[in-house]
Amino acid sequence: MLRQIIQHLEIATRGRGFYDLTDQVAGILEKSGLKTGVATLHLQHTSASLLIQENADPEVRRDLERIFSRLAPDGDPIFQHTAEGDDDMPAHVRTALTAVNLSIPFERGALTLGTWQGIYLWEHRRHAHRRRVTVHLLGE
Amino acid sequence: MLRQIIQHLEIATRGRGFYDLTDQVAGILEKSGLKTGVATLHLQHTSASLLIQENADPEVRRDLERIFSRLAPDGDPIFQHTAEGDDDMPAHVRTALTAVNLSIPFERGALTLGTWQGIYLWEHRRHAHRRRVTVHLLGE
Amino acid sequence: MLRQIIQHLEIATRGRGFYDLTDQVAGILEKSGLKTGVATLHLQHTSASLLIQENADPEVRRDLERIFSRLAPDGDPIFQHTAEGDDDMPAHVRTALTAVNLSIPFERGALTLGTWQGIYLWEHRRHAHRRRVTVHLLGE
Repeated sequence: MLRQIIQHLEIATRGRGFYDLTDQVAGILEKSGLKTGVATLHLQHTSASLLIQENADPEVRRDLERIFSRLAPDGDPIFQHTAEGDDDMPAHVRTALTAVNLSIPFERGALTLGTWQGIYLWEHRRHAHRRRVTVHLLGE
Repeated sequence: MLRQIIQHLEIATRGRGFYDLTDQVAGILEKSGLKTGVATLHLQHTSASLLIQENADPEVRRDLERIFSRLAPDGDPIFQHTAEGDDDMPAHVRTALTAVNLSIPFERGALTLGTWQGIYLWEHRRHAHRRRVTVHLLGE
Repeated sequence: MLRQIIQHLEIATRGRGFYDLTDQVAGILEKSGLKTGVATLHLQHTSASLLIQENADPEVRRDLERIFSRLAPDGDPIFQHTAEGDDDMPAHVRTALTAVNLSIPFERGALTLGTWQGIYLWEHRRHAHRRRVTVHLLGE
């Protein structure tokens, strides 16, 4: 019979970079006992993202930082919203260019992620932040 | 017991810019009587986006316009698809760089949005358009 | 009564470009007999995307290729992760800039896509690949 659970993750970031959430989400799924269904993740912020990306070579994540820093450079004079620092508006742009929610089906009690896929919180601010992610599971 | 509802919003835009849908979606949720579940929003167009972004300083949205105009400039000679005007293809690019669907869990009858998150329809065409959004709620 | 089904699509790509999945997803929906609900699609890779885009003029897709090639050029010296070729890291960037999952409500047995919307697998690698997409349907 279909049922749902909803939980929240609190992630303490240490500034700009990628934080792997895959095991935490898989852990919530395992504890739920649900075998088939869909997981919905929502990040409650607008200066960080949820991203599914390559989980093998860490150079991929460093290259993503480099190219996004080119697409939306810190301190770019195009930005007027600078009250919180020169990484504030670039963080909003990186969030707009990626996403704050993900929907991932699961079966046999496991997320249907590919071999090389990890679920990341991508912190875009240079300082440490506390980030909150809603995890909703619906299935049977 | 789990149940679902599906409704459609019609949004009359007045050209390029952000249109806040947060209250309309929250209103549908409230009327549904559902307390816990997931909301799925889908925009039925390819030259506008659904975006969760900062709802406080309007300068953030103006900066987003500026940077996206740099990433995909109106009238850029790279574009061949120009039949509908020089903002046509940039609108498709902005849509590809953002999203047309969102999935947001809710609990206690409220979307689990962060304090600074609003749900926006981002119109990318310079002229007024009528835009259609499907709102699907599943929960109990 | 609400029920769900989960299936997998295998897509053989012939290198960079757009592959229309709309009919395959609509076919799974039709066979399921479900009339109202939500479809969740997840691509199990990090160098290709799922994208809803214009399905009429193929020039739109060619323009998308051109602008994404400018945003993340093959062989750009900014990239360190080049082991699999000069289109490897640009493929990850294109994936980050778009999405690997989509959530689309359906009613009366049809996806609530707009007239001009198609569901595409966007292959970002220049060589042929086999791509796997999870299709989850939940509804009644």
